[in-house]
Formats: sequence, structure tokens, C-alpha cells
Amino acid sequence: MPVYQAPLRDMQFVLHELLEVETTYQQFHDYKDMLSTEVINQYLEAAADFCENEIALLNQSGDQHGCRLHEGVVTTPHGFKAAHQKYAELGFPSLTADPEYGGQGMPTLLRIAISEMLCGSNWSWAMYQGLSHGAMRTLEHHGTPEQKQKFLSKLITGEWTGTMCLTESHAGSDLGLIRTKAEPNADGSYAISGEKIFISAGEHDLTENIVHIVLARLPDAPAGTKGISLFIVPKFNLDEAGNIADRNAVLCTSIEHKMGIHGNATCALHFDRAIGYLIGPPHRGLNCMFTFMNTARIGTAVQGLAASQIAFQGALAYAKDRLAMRGLTGAHYPEKNADPIIVHPAVRNMLMTQKAFAEGGRALVYFLAQHADIIEKSNDPAQIQHSDELLAFLTPIAKAFLTETGNESAKHGIQIFGGHGFIVEHGMEQIARDARISTLYEGTTEIQSIDLLARKVLKSKGKLLNNMLDLIDTFIAAHHADPALSLYIEKLIALKGEWLNLTQEVTTVAKQNPEEIGAASVDYLYYSGYVVFAYLWAKMAQVAHEKQQNTAQDTRFYAAKIKTANFFFDKLLTRTQSHAASIKSGASSVMALSEEDFAF
Amino acid sequence: MPVYQAPLRDMQFVLHELLEVETTYQQFHDYKDMLSTEVINQYLEAAADFCENEIALLNQSGDQHGCRLHEGVVTTPHGFKAAHQKYAELGFPSLTADPEYGGQGMPTLLRIAISEMLCGSNWSWAMYQGLSHGAMRTLEHHGTPEQKQKFLSKLITGEWTGTMCLTESHAGSDLGLIRTKAEPNADGSYAISGEKIFISAGEHDLTENIVHIVLARLPDAPAGTKGISLFIVPKFNLDEAGNIADRNAVLCTSIEHKMGIHGNATCALHFDRAIGYLIGPPHRGLNCMFTFMNTARIGTAVQGLAASQIAFQGALAYAKDRLAMRGLTGAHYPEKNADPIIVHPAVRNMLMTQKAFAEGGRALVYFLAQHADIIEKSNDPAQIQHSDELLAFLTPIAKAFLTETGNESAKHGIQIFGGHGFIVEHGMEQIARDARISTLYEGTTEIQSIDLLARKVLKSKGKLLNNMLDLIDTFIAAHHADPALSLYIEKLIALKGEWLNLTQEVTTVAKQNPEEIGAASVDYLYYSGYVVFAYLWAKMAQVAHEKQQNTAQDTRFYAAKIKTANFFFDKLLTRTQSHAASIKSGASSVMALSEEDFAF
Repeated sequence: MPVYQAPLRDMQFVLHELLEVETTYQQFHDYKDMLSTEVINQYLEAAADFCENEIALLNQSGDQHGCRLHEGVVTTPHGFKAAHQKYAELGFPSLTADPEYGGQGMPTLLRIAISEMLCGSNWSWAMYQGLSHGAMRTLEHHGTPEQKQKFLSKLITGEWTGTMCLTESHAGSDLGLIRTKAEPNADGSYAISGEKIFISAGEHDLTENIVHIVLARLPDAPAGTKGISLFIVPKFNLDEAGNIADRNAVLCTSIEHKMGIHGNATCALHFDRAIGYLIGPPHRGLNCMFTFMNTARIGTAVQGLAASQIAFQGALAYAKDRLAMRGLTGAHYPEKNADPIIVHPAVRNMLMTQKAFAEGGRALVYFLAQHADIIEKSNDPAQIQHSDELLAFLTPIAKAFLTETGNESAKHGIQIFGGHGFIVEHGMEQIARDARISTLYEGTTEIQSIDLLARKVLKSKGKLLNNMLDLIDTFIAAHHADPALSLYIEKLIALKGEWLNLTQEVTTVAKQNPEEIGAASVDYLYYSGYVVFAYLWAKMAQVAHEKQQNTAQDTRFYAAKIKTANFFFDKLLTRTQSHAASIKSGASSVMALSEEDFAF
Repeated sequence: MPVYQAPLRDMQFVLHELLEVETTYQQFHDYKDMLSTEVINQYLEAAADFCENEIALLNQSGDQHGCRLHEGVVTTPHGFKAAHQKYAELGFPSLTADPEYGGQGMPTLLRIAISEMLCGSNWSWAMYQGLSHGAMRTLEHHGTPEQKQKFLSKLITGEWTGTMCLTESHAGSDLGLIRTKAEPNADGSYAISGEKIFISAGEHDLTENIVHIVLARLPDAPAGTKGISLFIVPKFNLDEAGNIADRNAVLCTSIEHKMGIHGNATCALHFDRAIGYLIGPPHRGLNCMFTFMNTARIGTAVQGLAASQIAFQGALAYAKDRLAMRGLTGAHYPEKNADPIIVHPAVRNMLMTQKAFAEGGRALVYFLAQHADIIEKSNDPAQIQHSDELLAFLTPIAKAFLTETGNESAKHGIQIFGGHGFIVEHGMEQIARDARISTLYEGTTEIQSIDLLARKVLKSKGKLLNNMLDLIDTFIAAHHADPALSLYIEKLIALKGEWLNLTQEVTTVAKQNPEEIGAASVDYLYYSGYVVFAYLWAKMAQVAHEKQQNTAQDTRFYAAKIKTANFFFDKLLTRTQSHAASIKSGASSVMALSEEDFAF
């Protein structure tokens, strides 16, 4: 079983050296003189300790024992409840929450960094916290003061957890098809009736109450996505004083038997005139959900990066230990029967790929989190708009690209173990099974790609893409004269031009035939992911070069960072070529077969 | 759960129309006037009936219940034993076996076609037969007449099954490290002692006896791969008359808990001075195993193709049924709430990819099987050598490329189901879990890639590659004037030149630095796989064009074949560009990091 070790040095590199949190967050009133390197590192170390020594140890047993449902009651794997209590005692649920309701008001960036560790050490357990955070954010943004007092404050202490109830069996990606009903009661509450499926953490024994956030239709709702409203439905109703009273009519009727994330209960919930409370304006539930959905997508991107990281750690330890064959240049360790497999280029190729995906992914999600903080804390409308547009553009890329590369890393992790990778006890196949969900939930890769190309790029007439190209231009302008960076700069210039050309080509053909968008979108997303990574890897290499010149510390760390950047540019960035060629080949061969002629 | 339907029409296309078995096998004495279309189709239909109506129905329950070990006895999932008995009664184990010992003497090609159906309908169950076939082939080629009479004849009837015992816990890919000992007994037999792991079908309740084929070292054996001998070790010893006598000292001490193939028992076997019989000359065991290993690699390639096929079938049915969103050009089915997801280009892209991999894979493995038959049945030494070289070159490509593409198809199968793909009951995630073993066993993808580039291409100084290029040339020469094929011909000309250039470049740099081989090999293998597929897809398109002109039958089938070829050339063959670029970027960035600097 891979031993989880929080990659603190690299996390600190991104936070302190790449994003320079200490100085960049000084501009925000709420964080002025608050986020010193020491404060941030203390949080990281406390979270690393919790992850390495508590939940990592429950990861494999959680997978093996899974959740059990008996007469509507879900029992989580042994140790999950105690770990939740400890997590709550340590104050983690309150990290970013509103101080008015008991929160610590820390930035999203810090939460994302901690979330990486939670997901890397125990994906299933971390999901209970991720969903609860989503419910907290929704209540913070859209709840009334009374709703916040009653429900949000209990989520912030970790006494209760929350869920997000969107999906119905016939309505997954297409939420417009939702049928769950909300009928007004005389007291201003609503009677919620319907069936939800795939509700992560929908029922469990970690806490005494659960706050469900539910999408449903009011009686006068228009059809489709514009007739959906949002409701709070607690598992237990509250009395006037806010204490737990009688059981509400929401029942877990089954839990899914899944490929992975066995430790997280994926529930079918039956709402039978359950008492609910409207959040936000009627029929505007999907708009209210966007806050949550974007957060959830970044949260899923974090899971993808975490999968790359833990698969890398497991595979690296094994590659140094396992002996097979001699190196191609002769024996590296003549005193042993054979060389450790890390000497073989094909093994190194996989390890370097995992490493480049993990570290690049870290840079990308932390960068996104920084812009999420700007949106929330800046007073400058232009700065807010810029960050908002950048986040809108980069979120589908981060969600899809990091989960797909997380799956690729998990595959390499198994592969490096050879036949042993297929055996449960080694823990590598669990990473692949857990990670497999991440390209499916919170919008599949294909949904993200349509969001990126149709909604973000084409609908904005390229404006959102141009913001990103401007960032690349700024980097090029600042560093084009630096000979140490010339390789990166050259490639960035070429990619920038190609990205724009591809976008223009798709724009042109899509005007004749909208199918061209769907035929190009997935390749376009991958292409964009590699180019965004190229920008971030070039920036990281530049920072590492600078540090090498200015400090005598950590020289091997910075050298490794540069070598990993080189690997990314040499071996992974070349993948853009196939995606570009596939985009250019258009939709005709994709659409040529009639539905009846796929099989004979 | 996907319903398995043998793709008989496409199998018949490859057998009768692409490979023209009826005429090409007329040259062989053993098959003259024997392999009519009717005879072949009867075999296929009988196998399809068995697969669709017997073992396909045990596939999901076999996964859920798995194998159980109790006091050395393995119980297979319910129904597996009865299915084996029926399979034996139908005469399938004897299909290709030597008529002298009760076999039917049919060609390997027919066995491979039937094997595709077995693997597609129930991978775990099919493995019992696959291993037994490997043992039969080894005994046929290397056993004494007495050994054949005693052991082979019982495998041919299906009364017993066989295994191949190679791996030890410290010796996976590197068989030179094997430690199992064989000490001579006074009666000419040997006492076999050691521990084997990962022995598929190593213990089970399908049959009363099991014939283990075991690699072990004689007392005077040289170290490494040149000191390994091959032995027969039956589970039960036989009396003089060949009847089952006392239990031999080979015991199953554990079965592995695995990601997939739960219905097949993966055993650790403890040999404690078990009685064994030498097969073939002393110390030449690995040479004797090569017969089996090459067969096993083609057998694994078949599994990869089978995974593509069943993942495609499952996903296609779902994509026609599941409703979500409207098509990009507007509603395709306005009478429904939403359109079936097959209208979406991103879904079609995945379906077409699966289809192109399944049908291309079928063409490749059947083509290989035809050359295996030529080697066995031809009287022409030049023809034999040609087929032998072609098979040596194409086997690592087929093994690695078809298992990797099988895994990719399985991934798409889950993806098309969205969140439902992650749920066990739908059966799509089982395909991915079962298929995951195929890039690991019988030599990982990385091992295959070194075999291809170092042993097959470079060691032959390009001769084995040139054979393949000659085949492509012949096709180009025959069809370059056909305007219907000009797109394919152009691309084949370009790829042929690039393949040769890449090979020459690697040859040159490898002389300076052997690490270049290992850094390039996996990309080289993928590149080769796509080009071999391009050749076969061009041939299939050409045959389909010809049929369209000469017959009024099956016009939609032939049109679909051509459209799938176009998709392959447009959307999948473009992947060669990234692999070529990665090969050209060389080894330096792969090897740059020291082992200590991978993580901080």
C-alpha cells in the first residue's frame, strides 16, 4: 500500500515562490498582515499530520469494507466517524467559512492545498468534507440570515455535514429533465417529493444530522432548466431553538455498488413530502447552484492532481525497490542480482509523466484558487472581472484535464508495479478505481469540453481565450531575452499562434455546421490543457532558475524542477500535435455513420 | 450488463473476404478441400451459441462471487464447472490439437476467432481454456510420445486442464532470476521444490486433474536464463495405466485478491518435492517456452480486441437508449424529452474509436493467426521464413497495442455511460477491471516495446521491419491508381517513409547511447501499431470498395466499413504525430533526474 507523504516542499514552492501568497494577498483587506509564510506552513503541517497519520491509514480498509446500508441507516467504514470528529475538533471544517457564523475566513487557496492532502490520502473520506463544503458555500451565498444561523453554523463546526442533491436517474448531465416536486406548505416551508440518485455522502453515521441541498420544481415552474428551485432539506427537522427534533421524510433507499470510492456512501434518496426551505429566488436554483458547481469542479480537479501525486509516490517507492533486468548501458548495481527498475527508461518515462502531471496540476489548481480569492476579496472591479473570466475559462480545462491525467497517472502506477499492480493489497489498483469517478461526476470530460469550446470560447468570441493568451504574452515579453528560458519561450510562441488558429478554424467551420464544435471539443480541451500546463511549467522553470541564481538553498529541488519542466516540454507537450491534427480533420468522419449502421 | 452478441458478420468479413481462408488454405495438404465457408461458419455459429447463451450469462456473477480457497481447494463461481463440461462435450478443447491424440487438427485461425468470442463473453472463464491450450501446445511440440499419451490426450478431451508455471515473487519479467529447483529421482523423474505465484487457473474444481508445466533449475544449471528447464507436474500422479493415483506434492497456498478477472483463480503454488517429468532438453526450458509465450501473447492480443468489442457493444446499446440534451443542430427526436446521446459528436467519437479498434484488432490477430498456420502447415521454406519473421515482428505490436487500445475502449465504455458507468450492475466497469490485467501479464507493454525495437527491429538491422514495409508497398503498388483509395495510399506512403526515418534515427542515436532505445520504445510501439492498423484498414476499405462494385448484397455493411476506415485515418492515425515527435526528442530529459531527486 503506498504510504502517503504530503508533498509539502512542492506545495510551498507553488504557494510561496510561484504565487507569492505573502505579498499578493497583502492587497486584500481581510488578509492584510495575516498570511505569513509561518502561518500558512503551520496550517499545511497540521493538515499533513492529520492526513498522513489518521485518514491515510483508513484508506485501504475503507475500500475493503465499504459502506453498509441496513434499514435506511448507513454505516461508514471503521474509523471514519472518529476521524471526522478529530477533523472537526482541529477546526478544519470552519477554515474558509464566514467568521460571522464561526468560520476562520481563510482563503480558498489554503483550503485547496489542504484539500489536495485530504484527497490524496483518503479520497472517499475527503468527499464527506468536500460535499459539506459545497453545502456551506451555497448557504453562505444564498441563505437567509436565519437559515445560516440554523444550518450553516452547524456545518461550520463539523457537527453536521451537507450534501448536494441534483441528479435523478433520467437526469444526469441534463438537469433540465429534473422531476422532483416542491409544493408550498401553509407555514412557508415546502413539501419535497421525488427520487434522487448518486447522492454522495447522502446518508452516513459521521454526524447526527445532514443538511441536504436539493433541486426541485415548484408547481408553477416552467419546463427545463429555468424552472428549477433550490431547497434545504434537513435529515432531522429542528425545533424553534434549532435543536434536532423529529426525523424528516427523506430516506436512503439504496447505496450504489461501485467500481471505487467504496468508503463514500453513494445514495438513492426518497423524498416523501419532506419539509424543505427555499434558498434563493424561485426558479433560479440552477443559477444559485453555479457557485457550487464551479467550486465542485475545481474540487474535482484537485482530486485528479491528488491521484497523480499518490500514484507517483507509490510507483516511485516500488521502482527504487523492485529488481528486474540490467540497465541498457550495463549493470547499475552490480552487487545486486538485477537493477532496480527505476534505471529503465520506460519506467522513468512513466514516473516523470506522473510527476509532471502532479506538479503541473498543483500549479494550475492553486492558481485557480488564487483567482477565486481575488474574485471574493478584491475591491477592484476590473481585477475581479479579469479573474472571473480567467476562472470561467480555466475551470473546465482544470476539471477535465487534471482528472484525465490523474487517471493516466493511476494507470502508470499500476503499470510500474507490473502484475503486482493488479493485486489489491498493493493499493495501486484502488487509486485507479477511485480516480475513475472523477472524469464522470461534476460534468464528464465531454461536458466540460463543450462548456469550454461552445460556452466559454465561441460565445465570448474568443475574449476568454485572449485573456489567457495575454498572460502567456506577458510571460514571453518579460523573459524572451533570458537564454535559460529560450526553449520554453520558443515553444510558447508557436503554441500561442497555433491555439488561436485552431480556434479560428473551428469558429469558421462551426458557422456552417454546429456539429464541428462537438467533434473538436474534446481534442480542443486536451490541447488547451497541455498549453496551459506549458505556460505554468515555463513559469515554474523561470522561478527555479531565478532561485538558483539568488540562493544556495535547495539547489537540487530547483534543478529537479527545471528537469521536470524539460521533460514536460520534450515528451508530453508533443501530444498537442495529434490533438491539433484531429481538430483539423473535422466532423465528417465522426458523423458519417447512421445510427443503425454502427453494428451488423 | 452488456449483452454479448458475437460479431459474426464482421468475423466472416475478415475470414472469408479479407483473408480469403477458403482459397488461401487450399495450398496446405492438411486443409485441402476441408475449410469451406459453410464448415467455418458452422464452427463460428456453434461457438457463438455457446458464448452468448452459456458463459456470457456467468460473466457478471463470476465477477461478483469470484473464486474461493478453502484448505487448498479452490471453488470456482457457480456454473463454471458445468460450462466447462458442456464446452468439452462440444469438442472445443480438441479443436486445433493433433489428430493422433484425439484432436480435430483445425487451423489456429479458427481457434483464434472462437477465442475472441470466449474472451468477449467471459474473460475469466476463457482463461481456463487459454492456459490449457498453452499446456497442450507445449506438450505437442516438446513432449515424448509417452508424455503425450498420458497427459496431452486428457487435455484434448477437456477431462483435465493445464497451466503454465513461470513467475516467482521476485521473478516476473526477468525469468533469469527463477529459483525453483528440480532434483533428479532414481526413476528418471524429478523432485520439484519452490514457490510459484500468479499461476492462472493453478487450482480449481472444473476438472479432476491439472497438468502444470513448470520452469525450474536442475542442480547443475548455469545461472540466468540459460539454466532453466521445463517440467510436467500433474496435480494427481498417474498409475501405470494412466489413471489418477495419489495426490502430488503441489499445493495452492493462496489465491490473489485482484482488481478484476475474479472468476479465474490466480494461485500461489507450493511445490514440495513434487514429482515432475522433464520436457525437452535440460537447460533449454525457456526455448521450449517460446512456443507457448508467442501463442500466449497472441492470445492476450485477442483479449484486448475482445475488450474493445464488448465495451463497444455495451456502449452502443446505451448511447441509442439514453436521453440527454439536444443535438447541436437541434432536436433529432423532437417527440422525446431529449435526444439519445448517440447524436452527440463527442459520444460518437468514442463509439467510432471503439469500433475502429475492435475491427482493426480483429483483422490484425486473424492475420497473425493465418501466418501461424502457414508456419505450421506450409512446405515452402521461404514462405515459412517470411511468415515466421512477420509473426516475430508483429506479435509484440499486437500484444501491446491491442491490449492498450482494449483498455482505452473499456474506458470509453464507462465514459459513455456517464456516472452509471461507475456502477457495478451496468457491467461496464467490469470490462475495464478485467481488461486491466492484459497490459501487465505475458510481458508488459514496456517489455513488448523493448522486444519490438531492440530484439526485432534493431537486432535484425531492420530486416523484420522491411518485411512489413514490403507488404505496404505491395498494397500501394496494386492500388495506387484507384481514386477511391487515394486518401489511404497517400497517407501510407508518408507513414512508410516516416517509420523508416524514425527507425534510422533511433538506430543512429542508440549507437552512442543505448538508453535511447528504452526512451523511444513505447512510442515506437504505438507508432508501429497505428501504421499496421492503417495498412489493415486500407486493405479492408479496398475489399469493401471491391465488394460494393461486385455485389448488391450487404451494401450498408460495406459502406460502414469504409466510413470506419475513414474515421481511423482522420481521427486516430493522427496520433502517430505525437509519438513521432516524442521519439525524436530523445532520452536526455527522461534520464536527467538522479534517482534521489525524484521527490523531496
